Amino acid sequence: MFEQLMENVTKERPLIHCITNYVTVNDVANVLLACKASPIMADDAAEVEDITAICKGLTINIGTLNERTIQSMILAGKKANELGHVTVLDPVGAGASTLRTKTALYLMKKIGFSVIKGNISEIKTLYQGSGDTKGVDANVKDMITEENLQDAIALAKDFSKKTKAIIVITGKIDIVADERQAYVIRNGHTMMGNITGTGCMLAAIICAYATSNKNHLLDATAYAVCLEGLAGEQAYDKMNLLGGGNATFRMCFIDAISQMTKEMLKEGIKIEIR
Amino acid sequence: MFEQLMENVTKERPLIHCITNYVTVNDVANVLLACKASPIMADDAAEVEDITAICKGLTINIGTLNERTIQSMILAGKKANELGHVTVLDPVGAGASTLRTKTALYLMKKIGFSVIKGNISEIKTLYQGSGDTKGVDANVKDMITEENLQDAIALAKDFSKKTKAIIVITGKIDIVADERQAYVIRNGHTMMGNITGTGCMLAAIICAYATSNKNHLLDATAYAVCLEGLAGEQAYDKMNLLGGGNATFRMCFIDAISQMTKEMLKEGIKIEIR
Amino acid sequence: MFEQLMENVTKERPLIHCITNYVTVNDVANVLLACKASPIMADDAAEVEDITAICKGLTINIGTLNERTIQSMILAGKKANELGHVTVLDPVGAGASTLRTKTALYLMKKIGFSVIKGNISEIKTLYQGSGDTKGVDANVKDMITEENLQDAIALAKDFSKKTKAIIVITGKIDIVADERQAYVIRNGHTMMGNITGTGCMLAAIICAYATSNKNHLLDATAYAVCLEGLAGEQAYDKMNLLGGGNATFRMCFIDAISQMTKEMLKEGIKIEIR
Repeated sequence: MFEQLMENVTKERPLIHCITNYVTVNDVANVLLACKASPIMADDAAEVEDITAICKGLTINIGTLNERTIQSMILAGKKANELGHVTVLDPVGAGASTLRTKTALYLMKKIGFSVIKGNISEIKTLYQGSGDTKGVDANVKDMITEENLQDAIALAKDFSKKTKAIIVITGKIDIVADERQAYVIRNGHTMMGNITGTGCMLAAIICAYATSNKNHLLDATAYAVCLEGLAGEQAYDKMNLLGGGNATFRMCFIDAISQMTKEMLKEGIKIEIR
Repeated sequence: MFEQLMENVTKERPLIHCITNYVTVNDVANVLLACKASPIMADDAAEVEDITAICKGLTINIGTLNERTIQSMILAGKKANELGHVTVLDPVGAGASTLRTKTALYLMKKIGFSVIKGNISEIKTLYQGSGDTKGVDANVKDMITEENLQDAIALAKDFSKKTKAIIVITGKIDIVADERQAYVIRNGHTMMGNITGTGCMLAAIICAYATSNKNHLLDATAYAVCLEGLAGEQAYDKMNLLGGGNATFRMCFIDAISQMTKEMLKEGIKIEIR
Repeated sequence: MFEQLMENVTKERPLIHCITNYVTVNDVANVLLACKASPIMADDAAEVEDITAICKGLTINIGTLNERTIQSMILAGKKANELGHVTVLDPVGAGASTLRTKTALYLMKKIGFSVIKGNISEIKTLYQGSGDTKGVDANVKDMITEENLQDAIALAKDFSKKTKAIIVITGKIDIVADERQAYVIRNGHTMMGNITGTGCMLAAIICAYATSNKNHLLDATAYAVCLEGLAGEQAYDKMNLLGGGNATFRMCFIDAISQMTKEMLKEGIKIEIR
């Protein structure tokens, strides 16, 4: 499966429009190139519709949102919907400020997203904020563990049902779900928390994979999560080999994405269906 | 002493709100993670108070200020003061434009800073701009040398007396002073001037150390300066070992922060009290 | 020739004012330091004239332009013209959105540029948009090849005649031309397309070289292009030696700029006059 998903990205080299934060924007651009896609960053209201129109996918990240860029997100998102493009939302910090929570919910109201990706805290914030909840979230506190995994999966499925988006919950264990089916992924390394940007980069990689595999959104998203997690594992080994610290890890991580082969993925992915 | 200071950061992993420039923001985030703190960047007026409220410390850097972010700096700073948070000012380029000089002085008027960190040119600009000066600055031109060291220390102490902030003057020799006491630090390497961002990163590290050591602000600030200087020395050696240039140095520098141990600091710091 | 050009940069260490995009701004700052110049980034209308006044050169890059920064570009450019500074335009994405095309043309109308640098698509967009064209561009499609090289040179020369700027067209083969003479440069490596920012960095390096060699604008620009291309070749070799991917290449690329010697350039440049 993933062989074809990967090949489709490599063949299409999809141009991805990123409205993203200025903290990790360089890493996002380089990681898109690493996974054989192409980035273009543009956040002014006067041009985002034009830019989206020449792209194939759109990723919106609210990491350093402001009044000006929120308007641009809406315009770009609506245009992307109009054109049938893949759209990914990374609601960075939803729950950390009223502005972020409200903006993420507002974006979800105005734009149809193909994928919404966040950590459990961000996803719970949006799940609860999006209307009536089933109460499944009560058991899913700050972290996904083997104990609350079933509840987290139920939450993801229910949230997907409401939003019509693939839901990705990242953590030590990752969940990728639509309303019917969920993948549980155990790739990744705790070292990924010692650099900034792995979440932002994941949203971009997901957007590239989903864009080039529009008829297999759930699978494409799941394999993008595996790809990033496996790259984290490989980067940790390489960092140790080089005797480096977190900046070396950052380099090795993007390197690993760019050097990933189908064979490595086949051997390294830890994914199961629930 | 520094063993405890370091341990307190590692134990607390303080969340630091950074309103900083977009040139070095990624390095600032990664260096905070490297020194076992956590970064959050947010600069919109509509959310900076919320964000500061969930953080433990605030660092303000005017490196790419604009009208919108200046307002945010004021709002965040006032909220941080209200909550008793540590606040660090990095007046990048004060003296280089009227906007920067005026903004830095305005921030100092509206916000109580725990620490103000700059090179001698920036600090002199603010010292002179903040009202009557004692004239001690006449002997402290562009660089701190062994010859004018006493005058520079006097300036730092007097400026601290006026501002109630710890004053950090960076250069070949670094000075960290309150109104009564000064540390003179001779760590660091000239190679640090061949990459962008060592100053911005220092402000962030100081903020992390001061935040987790609120009852020892002067010592925490001084040891943060030693930590960065020693990391510069180690990174220079590693760069040479790897046969790299300034980009390799940048990686090794952040690595060194992330790999620093109490033992290395104990062995490597060059600090004296004046 | 290039020995002197290089020495003049090293001797002057020119301060370059960059109004540039937030995607690659850190690389632009570090590459300016790598080639022995100094960067200062400032984009607020309230200070850009002050900042330009203390600099020696100005580079304007429209990669993430917005309404606020467009105004700043105009103010900075006019001030730079007034002071006789070198000015470089990098019209990133001209042709990709109406805003970018219009803004680039507007900047060219209001500001006299010393150098305009773009890929063939950007340069053609501006060439056609700047009034009557000779039709030479019809044969120069998406890429410069040995077949259409003569037409591309003619286009560059004619565009230079109109704009009074040195024209740089980047690609597999690079062209640097004024209205009378053109250099054809065959340095570089396709790997440079696998990271973001090589174009933005080139504009900055050109600005540094042109600034310190104002009486030899064409030569200085051409050798800056050779320098970057050769650094790309060296970085590719180093990346392979290290077994790295595109993030390693990025580091090695900036390293190579910082480690370049006159001897390496002498040996490695592939330049001819047309």
